[in-house]
Amino acid sequence: MEKISVGIVVVSDSVAAGRRTDGCVAALEKVFPPGEASVAARVIVPDEIGAIRKAVRRMTDREKLELVLTAGGTGLGPRDVTPEALAALIEKNVPGIAEAMRGEGRKSTPTAILSRSLAGSRGKSLIIALPGSPHGAAESLSCVWPVIPHALEILRGEGKECGGKKPGLRFKR
Amino acid sequence: MEKISVGIVVVSDSVAAGRRTDGCVAALEKVFPPGEASVAARVIVPDEIGAIRKAVRRMTDREKLELVLTAGGTGLGPRDVTPEALAALIEKNVPGIAEAMRGEGRKSTPTAILSRSLAGSRGKSLIIALPGSPHGAAESLSCVWPVIPHALEILRGEGKECGGKKPGLRFKR
Amino acid sequence: MEKISVGIVVVSDSVAAGRRTDGCVAALEKVFPPGEASVAARVIVPDEIGAIRKAVRRMTDREKLELVLTAGGTGLGPRDVTPEALAALIEKNVPGIAEAMRGEGRKSTPTAILSRSLAGSRGKSLIIALPGSPHGAAESLSCVWPVIPHALEILRGEGKECGGKKPGLRFKR
Repeated sequence: MEKISVGIVVVSDSVAAGRRTDGCVAALEKVFPPGEASVAARVIVPDEIGAIRKAVRRMTDREKLELVLTAGGTGLGPRDVTPEALAALIEKNVPGIAEAMRGEGRKSTPTAILSRSLAGSRGKSLIIALPGSPHGAAESLSCVWPVIPHALEILRGEGKECGGKKPGLRFKR
Repeated sequence: MEKISVGIVVVSDSVAAGRRTDGCVAALEKVFPPGEASVAARVIVPDEIGAIRKAVRRMTDREKLELVLTAGGTGLGPRDVTPEALAALIEKNVPGIAEAMRGEGRKSTPTAILSRSLAGSRGKSLIIALPGSPHGAAESLSCVWPVIPHALEILRGEGKECGGKKPGLRFKR
Repeated sequence: MEKISVGIVVVSDSVAAGRRTDGCVAALEKVFPPGEASVAARVIVPDEIGAIRKAVRRMTDREKLELVLTAGGTGLGPRDVTPEALAALIEKNVPGIAEAMRGEGRKSTPTAILSRSLAGSRGKSLIIALPGSPHGAAESLSCVWPVIPHALEILRGEGKECGGKKPGLRFKR
């Protein structure tokens, strides 16, 4: 099985300006099961719509990465604009991914319901916006990781048509 | 009590082309409690925005069916366009119906969070987009069936105004 | 700690016309923990988009209230238009607040999934649309109250940047 190619966009004014060290990339890398994913690109951008869009579009349209994760900018702060940046890029919205991340998150962290996370496809790439704290980003990704390989198969057009049988779906719980 | 008039639109390229037999209509009919609903129209259409819209609009606008169910085309496959087709027809979006279907579904099937199901009203009709597997479609409908008669009463303008008392709401659990 | 300034907009044709007495304001006031919030404005408007928007905009833009609650008009009735009225005012949508209210609500009241509640920010104000029954409005607000002071801090730009530590967040459970 080929590894899933992943791009990570850290969205943070203070990390981009060098005032703070990023902890999200390391936290996210720990979530990938060994041998299943390979981080092909990482970039840090400030909380600016244009910069976020440019970084994500490069990963989806040019580098053709299968999974593009953003971390940060999903809150209610004056500078938080990640959802607004991504809404224009996403072609097919998948609301259940964000619902699941918030629904699981709030079991331990009530403020998880304030996360304006979202997810959807662009071409054959899946884009997921995660919260900006390393713990929150990792927890959110862990929660939905089990369905990601299946989502990517469907995006590649390899999935069964609905209603058929497909043996060997790897993730059940 | 009058039966609820139901229309079912099966959205599937392969069923429309005769390469596969539909199992959704039979699965959905088993969900209706005896005597509560009557399937007045069934149609099979390919995964095409125009065909989906035309079939649904006929059921809502011309045939005035109370409940219009679609099955299929809610995934992430290249041909899945049911949410995009329906978004333009729905006048009042009811996000909680899809949230409940996905929230219940993922207890047994993690990939249920990938379903881009949606629901809403058009005139006095309630439209619900269900997944395309017979099992998934039936399970999703079962989950929200208890509130449908109430939703249709409200749509007909027969409901109480909020805050009043209305005796005899049939569905509680 | 300063009290949170709250505005309440009761949306109801029958209350606005004097045919029914409002029970929502009293029900909502019981939800605020003692000393934490102060209702600075209350108004009753009919189920009309223009009237709802004008009342909310006055509270957010002119009176600069931190929390603006509407009660009513979130259902599927022919006159229910609160979500449509608010969608144009909300600058940053916070879907998790409505998801949590519906998710909790349906544990006791299945029809809670029909509520088209929504929430989001406008400037530094948080707007939350609640259902119109006093019980439903109070239950929905109770469910999300624990995160509201934190949301308002973030909206004021006082929150930590994501990823940092912020001691003393008051609400955990």
